[in-house]
Amino acid sequence: MGLHQFIQGLTDLETIDRAPGHFKYQTHSVAAHSFKVAEIAQILGDVEELHGQTINWQSLYEKALNHDYTERFIGDIQTPVKYATKQLRAMLAQVEDDMTDNFIQKEIPQNLQERFQRRLGEGKDETLEGQILALADKIDLLYESFGEIEKGNPDNVFIEIFSESLKTITQYPDLACGQYFVHDILPELLNEDFASREQLIQISREILQSI
Amino acid sequence: MGLHQFIQGLTDLETIDRAPGHFKYQTHSVAAHSFKVAEIAQILGDVEELHGQTINWQSLYEKALNHDYTERFIGDIQTPVKYATKQLRAMLAQVEDDMTDNFIQKEIPQNLQERFQRRLGEGKDETLEGQILALADKIDLLYESFGEIEKGNPDNVFIEIFSESLKTITQYPDLACGQYFVHDILPELLNEDFASREQLIQISREILQSI
Amino acid sequence: MGLHQFIQGLTDLETIDRAPGHFKYQTHSVAAHSFKVAEIAQILGDVEELHGQTINWQSLYEKALNHDYTERFIGDIQTPVKYATKQLRAMLAQVEDDMTDNFIQKEIPQNLQERFQRRLGEGKDETLEGQILALADKIDLLYESFGEIEKGNPDNVFIEIFSESLKTITQYPDLACGQYFVHDILPELLNEDFASREQLIQISREILQSI
Amino acid sequence: MGLHQFIQGLTDLETIDRAPGHFKYQTHSVAAHSFKVAEIAQILGDVEELHGQTINWQSLYEKALNHDYTERFIGDIQTPVKYATKQLRAMLAQVEDDMTDNFIQKEIPQNLQERFQRRLGEGKDETLEGQILALADKIDLLYESFGEIEKGNPDNVFIEIFSESLKTITQYPDLACGQYFVHDILPELLNEDFASREQLIQISREILQSI
Amino acid sequence: MGLHQFIQGLTDLETIDRAPGHFKYQTHSVAAHSFKVAEIAQILGDVEELHGQTINWQSLYEKALNHDYTERFIGDIQTPVKYATKQLRAMLAQVEDDMTDNFIQKEIPQNLQERFQRRLGEGKDETLEGQILALADKIDLLYESFGEIEKGNPDNVFIEIFSESLKTITQYPDLACGQYFVHDILPELLNEDFASREQLIQISREILQSI
Amino acid sequence: MGLHQFIQGLTDLETIDRAPGHFKYQTHSVAAHSFKVAEIAQILGDVEELHGQTINWQSLYEKALNHDYTERFIGDIQTPVKYATKQLRAMLAQVEDDMTDNFIQKEIPQNLQERFQRRLGEGKDETLEGQILALADKIDLLYESFGEIEKGNPDNVFIEIFSESLKTITQYPDLACGQYFVHDILPELLNEDFASREQLIQISREILQSI
Repeated sequence: MGLHQFIQGLTDLETIDRAPGHFKYQTHSVAAHSFKVAEIAQILGDVEELHGQTINWQSLYEKALNHDYTERFIGDIQTPVKYATKQLRAMLAQVEDDMTDNFIQKEIPQNLQERFQRRLGEGKDETLEGQILALADKIDLLYESFGEIEKGNPDNVFIEIFSESLKTITQYPDLACGQYFVHDILPELLNEDFASREQLIQISREILQSI
Repeated sequence: MGLHQFIQGLTDLETIDRAPGHFKYQTHSVAAHSFKVAEIAQILGDVEELHGQTINWQSLYEKALNHDYTERFIGDIQTPVKYATKQLRAMLAQVEDDMTDNFIQKEIPQNLQERFQRRLGEGKDETLEGQILALADKIDLLYESFGEIEKGNPDNVFIEIFSESLKTITQYPDLACGQYFVHDILPELLNEDFASREQLIQISREILQSI
Repeated sequence: MGLHQFIQGLTDLETIDRAPGHFKYQTHSVAAHSFKVAEIAQILGDVEELHGQTINWQSLYEKALNHDYTERFIGDIQTPVKYATKQLRAMLAQVEDDMTDNFIQKEIPQNLQERFQRRLGEGKDETLEGQILALADKIDLLYESFGEIEKGNPDNVFIEIFSESLKTITQYPDLACGQYFVHDILPELLNEDFASREQLIQISREILQSI
Repeated sequence: MGLHQFIQGLTDLETIDRAPGHFKYQTHSVAAHSFKVAEIAQILGDVEELHGQTINWQSLYEKALNHDYTERFIGDIQTPVKYATKQLRAMLAQVEDDMTDNFIQKEIPQNLQERFQRRLGEGKDETLEGQILALADKIDLLYESFGEIEKGNPDNVFIEIFSESLKTITQYPDLACGQYFVHDILPELLNEDFASREQLIQISREILQSI
Repeated sequence: MGLHQFIQGLTDLETIDRAPGHFKYQTHSVAAHSFKVAEIAQILGDVEELHGQTINWQSLYEKALNHDYTERFIGDIQTPVKYATKQLRAMLAQVEDDMTDNFIQKEIPQNLQERFQRRLGEGKDETLEGQILALADKIDLLYESFGEIEKGNPDNVFIEIFSESLKTITQYPDLACGQYFVHDILPELLNEDFASREQLIQISREILQSI
Repeated sequence: MGLHQFIQGLTDLETIDRAPGHFKYQTHSVAAHSFKVAEIAQILGDVEELHGQTINWQSLYEKALNHDYTERFIGDIQTPVKYATKQLRAMLAQVEDDMTDNFIQKEIPQNLQERFQRRLGEGKDETLEGQILALADKIDLLYESFGEIEKGNPDNVFIEIFSESLKTITQYPDLACGQYFVHDILPELLNEDFASREQLIQISREILQSI
C-alpha cells in the first residue's frame, strides 16, 4: 500500500499502445500520449493567459497528466467503432470506473485516496481547465492521425479521426486557444513542405545539369 | 457484404497482441495463438482417436480456428486480473457478444450468417470437441507462460497463469488427451536442458584444458 | 518423442517471417499466415457448398492449417526470384522434404507418423480441397502484397506477386469460390476509400469555412 | 512561429530512446520518461504536503514535465560514462544550452519566450520543487535499472545506476518524500515475488501429485 | 586490456541507430552503415583502378570500416541541423575526439595504440583513399534518404540530405568513380519501376478482362 | 548493369537476420555481422603481424567483408541442425553457388566479374588470411551466443554453438591470434561482472544502513 503499485503501473502505460494494430508508421504508448497532451495543454494555457484568462495551473497539469492512467485496466479497446453502440460504450466506461475504484481501495493509502479519486476520475468537465484538456486531447489525436496519413496509411479511419478532431476543436469558439490553434498552428502543419519521389528526380536533374 | 471485411479483420488479428505489455520476451498475436491452438487441438484429437473416441474433425478444427476471432472487437483486455470482479467480466463478455452480432448483421451475407453465428459464438461447450478446445487453449497458454518464465521474466502473473492452466488441464480426468499431455508431453517440456552462464564457463574450462 | 518438439516448433513459426526483408509495413509470420489461409479456405469451402459441392471439411482444414509447417526447417528462402532457376527450386524442395522425413522419424510417435506424413506433405493436390488450399494461399498472398503497395512500398516485386496471384486465381474457372472472390470480394478490396494528404487539406478547409 | 515546431518536437521525443543500446528488455522513450517523472513528482509532492510543506504545484508540474525536452537536440548521449571526463560533460551541456537558445529564438513567439526559457532551462534548482524533481528523476531511473536487472540483463552498468540513484535519494534527509520512498516504497519493490523456472517445476509436481 | 572492450563495442554499434527518430521505414545501425560504406568504397576503388589509378587497398578498407566506430561514444547526435551552429558542431567533434583518446589509453594494448589512433581518427583526408571514403559515405546516405522518400516519408529533411549528398558527390570532378556513380548508377536508382495502387487496379482490370 | 543491384543488395543484408527466431535478446543482421567479422579479422591480423607474420591486408579485408554477401540469395537457413544431413547441406551450398553465378552474370559489368567471382566465392581457404577469416567468423559467433546465454536465453542450441566455436578456435594452434584470443580476450569476456537481483538487494541494504 506504499504507492509502489501505482508507480509500477506507469511502466505498463509505456507498453500499452493506443489503437493497437491501426498505427502502421508510428505507434503511440499511453504514457507518451499523456506527456504530449500535458505539453499541449500547457501551450493552450499560455495562450489563454495572454488573452486575459486566469488559469488554475495545478488543475490543468493534473488533469492532463492523469487523464488516461486508467487505461492500464482495460487498455485502449480495439474498436472498429462502427460495431460498438452507444450503450456498449457506456457499459465499457462503467467497467473501467469500477476497476478504478477497486484499484484505489486496494493500492492507495487512505489519506491520499480522495486525491486519486479526483485524478483518475473524468477530467473533461465544464471548467476552463477541463475544456482545455478536451482540446489538447483532440489536438494530439489530430497530429497522430495526420502523421499516419501524410506517410501514406490508406486506412480511412484516420481521415475520420482527423475530421472529427478538427470539428470538435472548432466547437469551442469561446476559447482563444482553440482559435489560435486553428489560425496559427494548423496552417503550419498543413503547409509543411512535403518530400516526394518526383521532387528527388527533379532535384537530381538540376544538380547534374549544373556541373 | 462480400466477406471482404471478414478477411480484412484477419490482418487486424495479426497485429493484436495477447496480454499486451506483459510478454517481455516473445509477443503472441491473436492470429498466431489461434494457429497454435488449432494445431494442438489436432494432436489432442489424434490421441483421443487412438483411444477409441470418435472425433468430429470439422467441428474440432472450426472451433479451434475461430475461437478468438472476436478479439478484434475489444482486443485482449489489459488485466491486472485482481481489479476486475466477476460481474465486470460478465459485462465485458456481453459487450463483445453484442459487437459480434452487429458485425455479422452488417458484414456477412445472409445465407452464411448462421454459420458465422456458430463459429464466432462460444466454442467451449460440453461436446468432446468443445472440451478439447478448452484443453488446447490452456496448453498454449501454459507454453506461453513457460516461455516467459524460463527466459527470466520475473512477473509473478506467469506463475499464476501456468499454475491455473495446469490445474484446469488436470480437471478433465476422462479425457485421454489430457492424461497424455500430463504424462508424455509436460515432462519433456520441464526436463529440457537449460543453458546457463555457469555451464558456459565450465565448458570453456574443459575445452581449454584439453588443448 | 511425446510430440513436445512438434509443439515447440509452433513457437518457431511465430518468429519466422515470410519474405524477410521485403515487407516494410507489416511483417507476416508463418504462423499468422497459416491461420489466415485456414480462415480463407473455410470461406471458400462455404461458397462451394452453397453451390452444391460436397466439401471434406476435415481434409480442407487439415491441409490449410499444416501447409507451411515445414518452413521451420529452411525458413522462407530469400528470393530475388530472378536468380533462382527452376532446377534450383526443385533442389530446395528436395532438401525440405528430406528434413521433414528426418523430423517425423525422430520426433513423432510411430502410430501417428502416417498422419504427419500426410499433413506435412504436399497439400495442393487435384482434390477439390487441394485446389481450394491453392486458391486460399494465393488470396492471402494477394492481400499481403496489396497491403504493402497501398501503403506505399515501391518495391516492384509486390506488383509481380499481386499480378501472379490474381492470374492463378482466375485459372480455376470451374471453382465457384474463385469466381466469387473475383466478382464479390476483389472489387471491395480495390474500391476501398483511400486516405490521402490532399483529402485532409480539403476537409480542413471545408470545416474551417463552416465555422 | 506558431508553436507548430514545438509540438512536432514532442513526436520526436516519442522516438528518442534513453540510453540507446543498453536497455535490452524494455526501452524507454524520452516522452514516456517525462510522463513517469511528472507522475512520480506528483506523488512526492503529495507526501510533502501531508508532512506540512507548501508545494507550488504549477512549478512542480512544469519542471517535471519539461525537464528533458531539450534532449531532442542532442539525444541521450551514448555513454560508457568511464570515457567522458567532467570537462567533456560540461562541454556537452553547453552545446545543448546553445541549441536550446537557438530554438527558442527561431520557433517560439516572442511573448512566450521568457516562459520557455524557464521551462527548457535547468529545473533542478534549490527550491523544494527543484529538489523533488531531482528525486523523481532518480526514482524513475532506479525503477528502469531495476527492471533490467530483475529480467536478467547482466550489464553491470545497471547495478551502478541503481546504486548511484539510491545514494542520491538518501542524500536529501530533510525531504519527507525521500524518506517515504526509502521506507515505504522501496521495500515493496525489492520484496516482490519473483517467478523462476525452479518454482514452475515445483508447482507442477505439487499439482500432479494432488490428482 | 586484451581488446575485449573493443570487440564488445562492436555490439553496441549494432544497436546505435543513425538519425534516431527520423527513419520511419528502415532504421540503419552504425554497424550496418559501416559495412555498406566499406562495400561501396570497394566498388569505387574498382572503378578507379580500371581508370589507371593505384589504390592502397589496405588504407581504403581500413578507413571505410572504422570511420564511425567512435559513434559508440556519443551516438548519432539528434540534429535538427538548423539549431546547431558551426561552432557547436566543432565542440561536439572535440568531445568525441577526447573520449576516443581516453578509450585508447584505457582499453588498447600499448603496442597497438598507434594503429588505433590512426583508425579511429579522421579518415577523410586528402589522399585518394580519403576522398573515396568521403564519396562512399555520401552514396550510402543518398541511398538511405532515397529509401525513405520513395516509401513515402514526407519529412523534408531527406530531400535536403539527398540533395546535399548529390552535390558533394559532384564536387569531386577528378574522381572517375564519382563520374561513374552519377552516370551509371544513379540513373538506375532513379528509373526503377515504382509500384503504385493505381497500377494494381489497372493490372487487375486487364487480368479480369482477359478471362 | 551499373552495380546498382549490388548496392541495393546491401540494404537487403541489413534486414536479413541471422538464425531468425532463435536470438531472443539481440538480433543480428547479416550486414552487422559482416562488419563485426571484418573488425575482428583486423585485430587478429594485428596480432599476427606483431608475431612476425606478413599479412596481405587487401585480401584479409576483402575476404572478411564479403564472406556472407551471398546470404541475400537464400537467407540464413532455419536449422534445427539435427534434421539436416551432410548431404542436404551440400545441396544447399550448391543452390547458393548457382544463384551467385546467375547474379554475377546478370548484374556485374564484365570487366569486374572476375573480382566478384573471387569476393563472393569461398573465402575460408588455406591461406593465412583465409584462416584468420575462419577464426574471426567463429569469434563473432561465440560472442553472439555468449550474449544470449548471459541474458538468460535457455535454448541449449547456444551452448552447442559456443562450445563448437571455441573448439574450432583451439584447432588452429599455429595461429598466434587464436592463442591470443583464448588467453587474453576470452578470460575478460568470461570474468565480466554480472549484475543480479540478489546483488541489488544486498547493495540496497548496505546503502540504507549507512544513512
